[in-house]
Amino acid sequence: MAKAEFDLIRRYFACHQPLNSEVALGIGDDCALINLPANQQLAITTDTMVEGVHFLPDVDPAALGHKLLAVNLSDLAAMGAKPFAVTLALSLPKIDHSWLEAFSLGFMQLAQSHAVDLVGGDTTSGSLSLTVQALGFVPSSQALLRSAAQPGDLIYLSGPVGDAGLGLKIRLNQYPFQESRALLALERPQPQVALGLALRGIARACIDISDGLLADLGHILERSEVGARLDWDAIPLSAEVIRYIEATGDWQMPLVAGDDYQLCFSVSPDQQHLLPERCVKIGQIEADRGLRVFKSGQIQTIQGTGYEHFA
Amino acid sequence: MAKAEFDLIRRYFACHQPLNSEVALGIGDDCALINLPANQQLAITTDTMVEGVHFLPDVDPAALGHKLLAVNLSDLAAMGAKPFAVTLALSLPKIDHSWLEAFSLGFMQLAQSHAVDLVGGDTTSGSLSLTVQALGFVPSSQALLRSAAQPGDLIYLSGPVGDAGLGLKIRLNQYPFQESRALLALERPQPQVALGLALRGIARACIDISDGLLADLGHILERSEVGARLDWDAIPLSAEVIRYIEATGDWQMPLVAGDDYQLCFSVSPDQQHLLPERCVKIGQIEADRGLRVFKSGQIQTIQGTGYEHFA
Repeated sequence: MAKAEFDLIRRYFACHQPLNSEVALGIGDDCALINLPANQQLAITTDTMVEGVHFLPDVDPAALGHKLLAVNLSDLAAMGAKPFAVTLALSLPKIDHSWLEAFSLGFMQLAQSHAVDLVGGDTTSGSLSLTVQALGFVPSSQALLRSAAQPGDLIYLSGPVGDAGLGLKIRLNQYPFQESRALLALERPQPQVALGLALRGIARACIDISDGLLADLGHILERSEVGARLDWDAIPLSAEVIRYIEATGDWQMPLVAGDDYQLCFSVSPDQQHLLPERCVKIGQIEADRGLRVFKSGQIQTIQGTGYEHFA
Repeated sequence: MAKAEFDLIRRYFACHQPLNSEVALGIGDDCALINLPANQQLAITTDTMVEGVHFLPDVDPAALGHKLLAVNLSDLAAMGAKPFAVTLALSLPKIDHSWLEAFSLGFMQLAQSHAVDLVGGDTTSGSLSLTVQALGFVPSSQALLRSAAQPGDLIYLSGPVGDAGLGLKIRLNQYPFQESRALLALERPQPQVALGLALRGIARACIDISDGLLADLGHILERSEVGARLDWDAIPLSAEVIRYIEATGDWQMPLVAGDDYQLCFSVSPDQQHLLPERCVKIGQIEADRGLRVFKSGQIQTIQGTGYEHFA
């Protein structure tokens, strides 16, 4: 990388010694070098966020830095992998030092709270676009795969959904009440890393809710070649989302809104007593393909199945 | 990732079984999973290319796909690492199937020729921006570091420089002759992967020439805390670049132009007989800090030290 780019990454993101002993060489050479532990697999994921698609132009840069890392750590959490390192590719329209300071603070605070090292980066001029690649370790054969659900498994959710979707409606001026919990869910999502680790050896299939509960559960069903019934009345909802549904009648929102980053996973009935108490049972895997949503005992027809770009 | 994104990556980039036995799980889950070989380190690099900064709007998409991967493999080559997997983050203004077909062909042909697997991806709408993260393995303690140069080491170059710089001048209509070798160097650079592997245990410091010979050699000098003398007359130049210099008098171009992706490395004098014949000696590491360029026996003053964004 050229000197100006190098200095930007070093100035804002690389002021610390590596937190992980696996990081043999961090930022500053052609590549970073990672020592590889025995009996582990490396989990890799990448996610991009683009202005106008994933965030609004007036977003708080600290929240953006937080969320960019959070969505990538969430993918590792959904595999049961422990994050240890990330690379960051920034495309910026200009060098705005106060923006960079806030952005890097949001990013690095979350990184440090999960003991994640930034090991590489690239900065270019261009319209605002942010890409992270995140690396984690998981003991061999213990990763939680989308393809592992079996008929009879119970379907669980790690916490309420719909809050981030409500937050987006507030930011888009489609809902008049400034519900702070919903805005926090949208702008400061918490990746469920500790839960992902706790689910190793207990859960079967697992996914994080980024595109919406129906769409993401749909990925599990497709990859596992199974179906499911989902009990709408069992889905955990915040008081704010319940108020929204009462005010608008839009009970489908928590099913189709994305960005909540809760984990949705399947577990054999004889393992459910091992789950943390906050996990909530919302349905069951069935051999019959397709996803059947029940509300007040009635099967429902759902419009739309989650967020898609280029739709 | 959402279904539309998933299908784009799957349709254009993921039609093959993994070429590497280390790839335990490829595209299609929250993360890819990699089996880790013993006694190896993982090398990681990331590079972004943005329209208008790294390539012109009318670039051939197949050449762009090739180059995006090539610049990342070149970073692995400069560490002496063997590439095995990449992730790809694409931001596209629209879905243009003929563009995607050509782009993916250029990308995947180079990937297959180096036995590299695409293990993850993200596609979003946005202005055209392309990020690759590349992964390679290198035997522990054998990586070629920028910091390893020692006074007395000879400085070598793997091949001619300045061709890509000349190609850029042609594309920008700053030079009237359509030198096809120069355009090929600019648009279809060949990462020096095999040479990087061959240099393990022979070379000391190594870097790839992406920002220009002076800038990149400067990175070695800075990280190794040494200086160097560089003999301009020894630098390998193509007939096309020699013609350019004769026509324009611009003898500094091969020193400051980027994008050649040759390797520049230092080697102890008693190891130089082990180098492939095409490598050319261009100078020597010295204890005195700073870079001294000699041309026809006279020390020279150089304007500019390579490409910097935001300059």
